[in-house]
Amino acid sequence: MKIEALETALYRIELPVPLSDSTHGTITHFELVTVRLRDADGAEGVGYTYTVGVSGAAVRVLIDQGLRSVLIGAEADLIESLWQKMWWRLHYGGRGGLVSLAVSAADIALYDLKARRMGMPLYRLLGGFDSAVPCYAGGIDLDFTLDALLKQTDDNLAKGFRAIKMKVGRARLSEDADRVKAMRAHLGADFPLMADANMKWTVDQSIRAARAFRDSNLTWLEEPTIPDDIAGHTRIVREGGVPIATGENLHTLHEFTQMIAAGGVTFPEPDVTNCGGITVFMKVAHLAEAYNLPVTSHGAHDLTVHLLAALPNRSYLEVHGFGLDRYIEQPIVIRDGVALAPETPGHGVAFDWKALENIRAGG
Amino acid sequence: MKIEALETALYRIELPVPLSDSTHGTITHFELVTVRLRDADGAEGVGYTYTVGVSGAAVRVLIDQGLRSVLIGAEADLIESLWQKMWWRLHYGGRGGLVSLAVSAADIALYDLKARRMGMPLYRLLGGFDSAVPCYAGGIDLDFTLDALLKQTDDNLAKGFRAIKMKVGRARLSEDADRVKAMRAHLGADFPLMADANMKWTVDQSIRAARAFRDSNLTWLEEPTIPDDIAGHTRIVREGGVPIATGENLHTLHEFTQMIAAGGVTFPEPDVTNCGGITVFMKVAHLAEAYNLPVTSHGAHDLTVHLLAALPNRSYLEVHGFGLDRYIEQPIVIRDGVALAPETPGHGVAFDWKALENIRAGG
Repeated sequence: MKIEALETALYRIELPVPLSDSTHGTITHFELVTVRLRDADGAEGVGYTYTVGVSGAAVRVLIDQGLRSVLIGAEADLIESLWQKMWWRLHYGGRGGLVSLAVSAADIALYDLKARRMGMPLYRLLGGFDSAVPCYAGGIDLDFTLDALLKQTDDNLAKGFRAIKMKVGRARLSEDADRVKAMRAHLGADFPLMADANMKWTVDQSIRAARAFRDSNLTWLEEPTIPDDIAGHTRIVREGGVPIATGENLHTLHEFTQMIAAGGVTFPEPDVTNCGGITVFMKVAHLAEAYNLPVTSHGAHDLTVHLLAALPNRSYLEVHGFGLDRYIEQPIVIRDGVALAPETPGHGVAFDWKALENIRAGG
Repeated sequence: MKIEALETALYRIELPVPLSDSTHGTITHFELVTVRLRDADGAEGVGYTYTVGVSGAAVRVLIDQGLRSVLIGAEADLIESLWQKMWWRLHYGGRGGLVSLAVSAADIALYDLKARRMGMPLYRLLGGFDSAVPCYAGGIDLDFTLDALLKQTDDNLAKGFRAIKMKVGRARLSEDADRVKAMRAHLGADFPLMADANMKWTVDQSIRAARAFRDSNLTWLEEPTIPDDIAGHTRIVREGGVPIATGENLHTLHEFTQMIAAGGVTFPEPDVTNCGGITVFMKVAHLAEAYNLPVTSHGAHDLTVHLLAALPNRSYLEVHGFGLDRYIEQPIVIRDGVALAPETPGHGVAFDWKALENIRAGG
């Protein structure tokens, strides 16, 4: 079935509470870029990507001016073929980076269209492993007082979470160590607790930090340093003594290959909205499996629950409070630490287009 | 001195003759994105980047919506500080790729402004090594008949070139080998001749090709395979027996570090308009020097002549026939295989803004 129409939009989603981490400073809003495909039968597929506040308009332009001509009139089912065409169409100046956000949104729409046409939930189309996916609450709480951090933690427990991630990367390592220790004491010895440094440190600082956290039994330490330093990651894994997660800033399969093959990551963590879409996320997960590694995820949990529900080596699904819930008809439900992939056809993320209309940005 | 104004524009430059290589298919036009900065004294700096036909509008949006707020009101001389701010401003979804094109254009404008304020040609500001830079004619001629290829070669010799690059990557390797052999016979045994495959081959095909060209004494074989495969490049260098150039599709210092540290490249070849600007180009060149490697260049020769004129480990400057000459007041002059960095302040690339007005794209 041929693709007949493509429509993009850009929305600005204000955060109820501004968030902060060690790298991006204060985040007041994020941007949502959507892609709606329609085939000659009138069937629809919806894809999306997001940014932490900038570059959304450029992503939309890439889809409209770069990918539209690849997709319109093309056979919608041949997703791998279309993915290759999109990749090479925007390869000059692309090869990952921002282009991967544009390709991701289109690729997700293609998968949604295909699964809906088949009347099948995405996780079953992608393989089908187990629709009940362990998840964790990803806090963006670096600047919270300890009291606020513990309060947020209690709220997350009440919401049904049974695993929690906190931010680290404060001015002094001793502050981080104290906060991690306090969280561990609050949660008990075996509760899954992760910490995320958002690339704050050098390699040696990362190793020092990992060692400072050793007795706190972290499930993983995330993004200790910039993902560009692969050899550095190998050292951190080996010398720090704490499992390492990274991947939200890796934008190609090859970037994951390099990190994984070098032994620089324990929990590869692709974001389906910026790694190249479902096509690349699944390849990264399979690569991780081939290396005997679990895979976790970043962002877009309502969609990503399907991907982890399809994978035998899935670890935790990240659930973020990015404020998108207000614009989705049935946000994900967490019960006793588990999120369920819905049984509705496609990815099941139904946007409230009317509500979104009020926050449209850039025409 | 503070930056007071920033103006961007997008132009569509038709090619007099459509060009072709093994990857990008037929190229009918390219896009020029310009950045003009003005400081509080009214001094100006001009920067630019280009694409092979797509993504230019997105690059312009990135500059206007992402980088403008970093630059306006900032101290113009603190280029390294501004570069870091631009990098982190667009880091989410960025980290190279298309964002590097935007940062490059802004960085070039900052350097031009600084050099013009100092009344100094850019190559002297950057170090000053030797203004006479050996150069080569970069042919985009994969689909030319052998006769047309030899005719183009004679034209290039008549224009003053004393080094030439041709495309390879035709359907059969024997065709490539025959064309390289014919060029070698035409040019004589010691004439510097390069061949560019534009990422056409797998690693094993690349090694096979390098061996097929061994007796033709190539100065280098360029981009045999995708730059994402670093380990593959190491094999090609070691097993192929021909020096390897790559870099036009590497968009960060770190990507060069990985390739160079792995021994995957003999001639690192950054493009100042897509690697992150003059700031990153110089770091790549110095990294190459630290590894005892020569550095060559890709694209934007009118500007890049200054960079190679500042570097002791410079190899050849690539001179491309991309059609920009018609819009530059004093295009580069080649004499006896050498291009001269001009002694005018700044980079000396004076665009014919009136003529450009006629080919403005996207408002």
